[in-house]
Amino acid sequence: MASFEVTVLGASGGPDVGATQCFLIRPFGWRGLESVCIDGGAGSTQIAKMLAGETRNGLTESFYERDYEPVNRFFDSNAPVRQGLSDSTLHALNNSPRITSYRVAQVYESIKGYYVTHPHLDHIAAMVIDSPLIFNSQIPMNKTIWGLPFTTDALKRFIFNDSVWPNLIHSGGQRLKTEALADQVTTTNSTFTNFEVTPFRVSHGLAAHHPREKISSTVYLFRDKITDHCIIICGDLEPDSDEPLLSKLWSYMASNIPLHKIKAIIIECSSPMTIKELYGHMSPARLAKELSHLQRTYGYKQRPDMNVIITHVKNYCSPKDPRLVILDEVRQESQKLGLQGIRFSIAIKGYTFYL
Amino acid sequence: MASFEVTVLGASGGPDVGATQCFLIRPFGWRGLESVCIDGGAGSTQIAKMLAGETRNGLTESFYERDYEPVNRFFDSNAPVRQGLSDSTLHALNNSPRITSYRVAQVYESIKGYYVTHPHLDHIAAMVIDSPLIFNSQIPMNKTIWGLPFTTDALKRFIFNDSVWPNLIHSGGQRLKTEALADQVTTTNSTFTNFEVTPFRVSHGLAAHHPREKISSTVYLFRDKITDHCIIICGDLEPDSDEPLLSKLWSYMASNIPLHKIKAIIIECSSPMTIKELYGHMSPARLAKELSHLQRTYGYKQRPDMNVIITHVKNYCSPKDPRLVILDEVRQESQKLGLQGIRFSIAIKGYTFYL
Repeated sequence: MASFEVTVLGASGGPDVGATQCFLIRPFGWRGLESVCIDGGAGSTQIAKMLAGETRNGLTESFYERDYEPVNRFFDSNAPVRQGLSDSTLHALNNSPRITSYRVAQVYESIKGYYVTHPHLDHIAAMVIDSPLIFNSQIPMNKTIWGLPFTTDALKRFIFNDSVWPNLIHSGGQRLKTEALADQVTTTNSTFTNFEVTPFRVSHGLAAHHPREKISSTVYLFRDKITDHCIIICGDLEPDSDEPLLSKLWSYMASNIPLHKIKAIIIECSSPMTIKELYGHMSPARLAKELSHLQRTYGYKQRPDMNVIITHVKNYCSPKDPRLVILDEVRQESQKLGLQGIRFSIAIKGYTFYL
Repeated sequence: MASFEVTVLGASGGPDVGATQCFLIRPFGWRGLESVCIDGGAGSTQIAKMLAGETRNGLTESFYERDYEPVNRFFDSNAPVRQGLSDSTLHALNNSPRITSYRVAQVYESIKGYYVTHPHLDHIAAMVIDSPLIFNSQIPMNKTIWGLPFTTDALKRFIFNDSVWPNLIHSGGQRLKTEALADQVTTTNSTFTNFEVTPFRVSHGLAAHHPREKISSTVYLFRDKITDHCIIICGDLEPDSDEPLLSKLWSYMASNIPLHKIKAIIIECSSPMTIKELYGHMSPARLAKELSHLQRTYGYKQRPDMNVIITHVKNYCSPKDPRLVILDEVRQESQKLGLQGIRFSIAIKGYTFYL
């Protein structure tokens, strides 16, 4: 029995603007339209495309060997994934007008907020450009942007500052607000009161211009209090170097949650093994090593039964779709390390995972 | 005989992230792949979709009465417009590998720079998120971002600052650079030496949070020195209030360029007549009034023979596509004012105008 519905609105590591990272999350089988997002690289446009059935049946955009690839090449054969918005969302829309723009507005209105991993543009662009819709609506609507202070501060200083975007935070009568979270402090989501959310600061490399300055990102742990099921959702990240960050997350997990209760880890893997300059990102080898680290932290008496869903693959010039290259490589690297009980898939826009 | 090829990569007034304003411009019949962009709300993703032939034949996304509308509803019946990248671009790609990702890279590599109208996110998002591609390429590639100082300064302070995006301007060894233009000062484009470009500062309303602070935008005048043909390309803008800005542009035109040499004005019209709060944008009535102002500045002995191409229409909840509503209204308002010699169309992503 699943606990979470995770709809992939976008999962590109760039460019694919408008379809970069955004996951729409709800409790499994939730009767209303409500959701929260992790990151905001995609938004109302992707919802429109899904509602209009634009996703080609069984095919997904690739633009490499073929322009459209059979989507099942990207999923583990046992991955609990189906095309489109979740069944419960479509059921909640049943009595809505048949005009797509109205239905998009309803789904968008019901996004209660965004847990943002870091303020890089590919993780916020659609959230920002969608935001005037909050004020166009007849229905009173409020949205919260949650994040560690480095995220909420950057959004206020650099984005909602009237130069880059209208300052809808200070002029919007609390319809759009930011709420800073504290590292490793658990809060309960006010809409989904079964959901506990804990942010963990992680490393995302060094600044390009001031290479002594560290760039941070966030991993979000979602826990369903009833079932004790968890999902871990990452933004961009790299393995620990001088600070124990990811290792703290793995220790926290091992101390608090049985391994088989982790239903999924949604984690970036930006580039395949041939790319050596990683700029604060994961590679297939790094990812397999972290999963091995997690297993070691739990000890070998517990066996995982989880989906690892790879996000944020970067487009680059290659004959083969880099997502398929990475999927092969991650499976091989994991096998080398003797990892078991993990089903690897790629996050594909327009699909919902039932976790 | 046309002087300009203008490919619409994006023309939405929001949200439709990834397909907001970006026009790819080249001299008509240019033999290479080179181009420059006006704004950067769309980019490599839209190029990929066009090369993969994703645009449905004769239909375009709408999401109102129908999810896909016949595209000819959006164009004047005499508009010089065809689906896809320009014939000359496709011809220059003839010997390239058949893999879409390679062809996208070639077209992207050949974008020499962006003339940005203002730093609002819907005009820059794809330009920014595409920018790492500059450094992935095997081929040495340089791109320039041109703009009035309020644009180039904001991009440096708020976007390429390592917090919102890697600082590729200061760390990129001049591969990506900004170049501030001066208001009403003509420069020659270094790639297309027949093209003279003149920026005009215009008004884009007031700041949301500090309503005494003015927001500026830019209109670009492109002139072909050989044919003397011109196109005027606007970002967001509103009519003059306390400063003569648009009226300076019209006077400049009337003093320097015969009216029939203006091949096209690409201008925003964000909302239909029912919307009263315009937030620094144009309405059909305002647009018709400006065109009448232009005609008056020239006097009535000269008659225009131009395309007015409407961009930046905002999505909103309505049974009918607001672009079609606006097209009807602009035609009616222009008729009321006795305007003649103008062909009205909507800028539709994935189409090229030959102007």
